[in-house]
Amino acid sequence: MELIDGKEVAAALKRKMAEEVAVMERKPTLVAILVGHDGASETYVGHKEKACKEIGFNSAVLRFEDTITEDALLAEIGKLNDDPQVDGFIVQMPLPRHISEQKVIEAIDPRKDVDGFHPVNVGRMILGLPAYVSATPEGICELLRYYRIPTAGKHCVVVGRSNIVGRPMANLLSDKEFNCTATLCHSRTENLKEICASADILVAALGKAEFVTADMVKPGAVVIDVGITRVPSDKTRNGWKLLGDVKFDEVAPKCSYITPVPGGVGPMTIVSLMKNTLLAAKGTIYGK
Amino acid sequence: MELIDGKEVAAALKRKMAEEVAVMERKPTLVAILVGHDGASETYVGHKEKACKEIGFNSAVLRFEDTITEDALLAEIGKLNDDPQVDGFIVQMPLPRHISEQKVIEAIDPRKDVDGFHPVNVGRMILGLPAYVSATPEGICELLRYYRIPTAGKHCVVVGRSNIVGRPMANLLSDKEFNCTATLCHSRTENLKEICASADILVAALGKAEFVTADMVKPGAVVIDVGITRVPSDKTRNGWKLLGDVKFDEVAPKCSYITPVPGGVGPMTIVSLMKNTLLAAKGTIYGK
Repeated sequence: MELIDGKEVAAALKRKMAEEVAVMERKPTLVAILVGHDGASETYVGHKEKACKEIGFNSAVLRFEDTITEDALLAEIGKLNDDPQVDGFIVQMPLPRHISEQKVIEAIDPRKDVDGFHPVNVGRMILGLPAYVSATPEGICELLRYYRIPTAGKHCVVVGRSNIVGRPMANLLSDKEFNCTATLCHSRTENLKEICASADILVAALGKAEFVTADMVKPGAVVIDVGITRVPSDKTRNGWKLLGDVKFDEVAPKCSYITPVPGGVGPMTIVSLMKNTLLAAKGTIYGK
Repeated sequence: MELIDGKEVAAALKRKMAEEVAVMERKPTLVAILVGHDGASETYVGHKEKACKEIGFNSAVLRFEDTITEDALLAEIGKLNDDPQVDGFIVQMPLPRHISEQKVIEAIDPRKDVDGFHPVNVGRMILGLPAYVSATPEGICELLRYYRIPTAGKHCVVVGRSNIVGRPMANLLSDKEFNCTATLCHSRTENLKEICASADILVAALGKAEFVTADMVKPGAVVIDVGITRVPSDKTRNGWKLLGDVKFDEVAPKCSYITPVPGGVGPMTIVSLMKNTLLAAKGTIYGK
């Protein structure tokens, strides 16, 4: 069993990007819009700023109170769309209830939508055209590439059909780069255990702590754990610990490869965002 | 075994649309662009015009020689995008080699893209937002609805990952309306026979005549045959016959439902186009 070390891969990819950015005349610029004072959102945006700094991107955070109106927020997005200094930007979710997240996503110029949430980018990804791919599935693709995991013809089972992880993941894996046979499972799936146990590559992205047990995993399978749930713990100083969707201790011995939580998929998501920002600055997807 | 009668369903849906159109003040208008003189394309466009007439839509065909430049064709598309009389339009494929089909598709205003080929419509469909869905997958959805075939939790296997049939089909079936567990197979799939034989619903869309044999079908399965291949025959007056992707005679007795070829999925595709045109005229997807 080999542990997939997301921290190592993330560091390697960031180093590579930093080298590329070092010789760029104009540094890529990523802006984050942060509405309100949600603790988790603050943390995520902080991590993104830190990554920008490490790689040599310019970055900025635009902060708004959670009383901002939808129209005012859409106007701010319009400004970023029009600002030639900004290569890409994100609006940190979730947003206050009075603002439509979908409207906000669709207001972002697809050429600057480095989160890959806009229908144009989703559609282009599905059609196999160049596109910004959302961070978690793209991060998992990078892990498969880095470890040169054989995927062609293999049966990949993705559990969870969310728009930002499970569904794009199944589509990417069944496309020509990876050539997997992809099965997308969800809360309504019958015989879920049996289907998981038939997977050569199992991607758990349902958000239920330790849901995947050893009997659901085929010997020699590759297991990618996207889950991250905070649970109380009396064994840690801060009183909580993070669990994945996979019961790691019993599943790991059966696998050929497995991602730990934390330190597996998690560190890759920010790297994907950085990769998209670099692509935006270079005009790789939509031209200059 | 029950035969899924695409002709009957198509007729019923057309009647229903005709009733709705009869009381509309402004009739829906569909325009087809036809480049060159390809026989099959002429036939398809003819069928579309006929369906418009039956339902009470206005229709027109814009014909261009296959020497038309890409720029000139894009200019014609621009005119249709701007024409308030035109609710939806299609560009009949294939196009001459010197014209980029992708550029043409992306030039169509998504609000008038009743073929559902534009990345915006593909992306919206994937995200579960209102969208024009391409004709064949939408037609198959209508067959499942008409026969009230139970789909929730069932395992659906789609063979063939094309952008206009297999891939959207797998995504639609795994979304909340149908709630299938969807597996997308293709030319690189290992153990294809075994996977097909595990399907409660099998959609064959690979384009190989009589590829699916009885041993690949689970007893009681629902089999949807998208294939249509013309093969020589000495038993027909015109010297050829149409075959599906399924070896009908040996597979049919094992099924709970099966679509014949011809007369199964085929008649539904034009109905889907008509349905999209009606949605366009009503502003259902993108507003007025």
